[in-house]
Amino acid sequence: MPTSSSDSDIKAMRLAIEASARAADQGDGPFGAALVSPGGEVLLVASNNVKTAGDCTGHAEMVLIRQAQTQFGRPALRGATVFASGEPCAMCAGALFWAGVGRIVFAASQADIIRALGASPAMPIDSRMTLAGAQPAVQIDGPLLGDEAYAVLKKFAETR
Amino acid sequence: MPTSSSDSDIKAMRLAIEASARAADQGDGPFGAALVSPGGEVLLVASNNVKTAGDCTGHAEMVLIRQAQTQFGRPALRGATVFASGEPCAMCAGALFWAGVGRIVFAASQADIIRALGASPAMPIDSRMTLAGAQPAVQIDGPLLGDEAYAVLKKFAETR
Repeated sequence: MPTSSSDSDIKAMRLAIEASARAADQGDGPFGAALVSPGGEVLLVASNNVKTAGDCTGHAEMVLIRQAQTQFGRPALRGATVFASGEPCAMCAGALFWAGVGRIVFAASQADIIRALGASPAMPIDSRMTLAGAQPAVQIDGPLLGDEAYAVLKKFAETR
Repeated sequence: MPTSSSDSDIKAMRLAIEASARAADQGDGPFGAALVSPGGEVLLVASNNVKTAGDCTGHAEMVLIRQAQTQFGRPALRGATVFASGEPCAMCAGALFWAGVGRIVFAASQADIIRALGASPAMPIDSRMTLAGAQPAVQIDGPLLGDEAYAVLKKFAETR
């Protein structure tokens, strides 16, 4: 269901979407993510670096987690919120769970991503299903600004 | 369903289980993985390094993928088989999909892991469900030598 969202949610998601556009400009996957502390501070913004880093695990959320661990230590992730321009895949939803993130907010849904980028390669399980049985539970909200994130995906698909 | 397995499958899985025991000895998560080329050559063996690397994403399969990319390049993973001492979580199953692995074989199942280590934190989705809709499909076999892998998990749980 669409999220009823605060101004701060919208600001953080715009940072994630801007990061998705920067990734696309570099030829990386068109995805970005932002990390917001439980107190509401934007701690980090990261972009997909699969192509530029030669790392198939370099999705924006993974880059964000690794950088946060290095820069702030693992506790900074616990209870934090991650804003993702694209709904986290199983790898990323799982990593966010292990990081102890409390809330995930996404813009473009898995269905949007497949509609823009195609169905292969694709792993269409949605993030709520991936984390359905997770203990402790993770709150998942979205789509939020799905149209804005989809526009970046669509432009990427048309120009690659 | 249990896998009818070749001698080479059993040898590769024993390498993964031995790596799980080494990880446990270091205080890391008691999990290991082995990478076998499409031609049947064991290319790499890796252990969980979550604690020693301070990286929540340092599951054995993730360590294996990153090391393989660095050491052999991304193409080495395509069509390869990964033997995992514990059934891959959503993060790892997803990463193995993005790596282009053709086959996953696991020893201890998700249910075994939860039975040995407890239900929280845990993300109990099984690997076949995570990859059910994946295109291209990934073959998943297991459990194979589940009892041997479970013994490592159980010992870890009793001594930590």
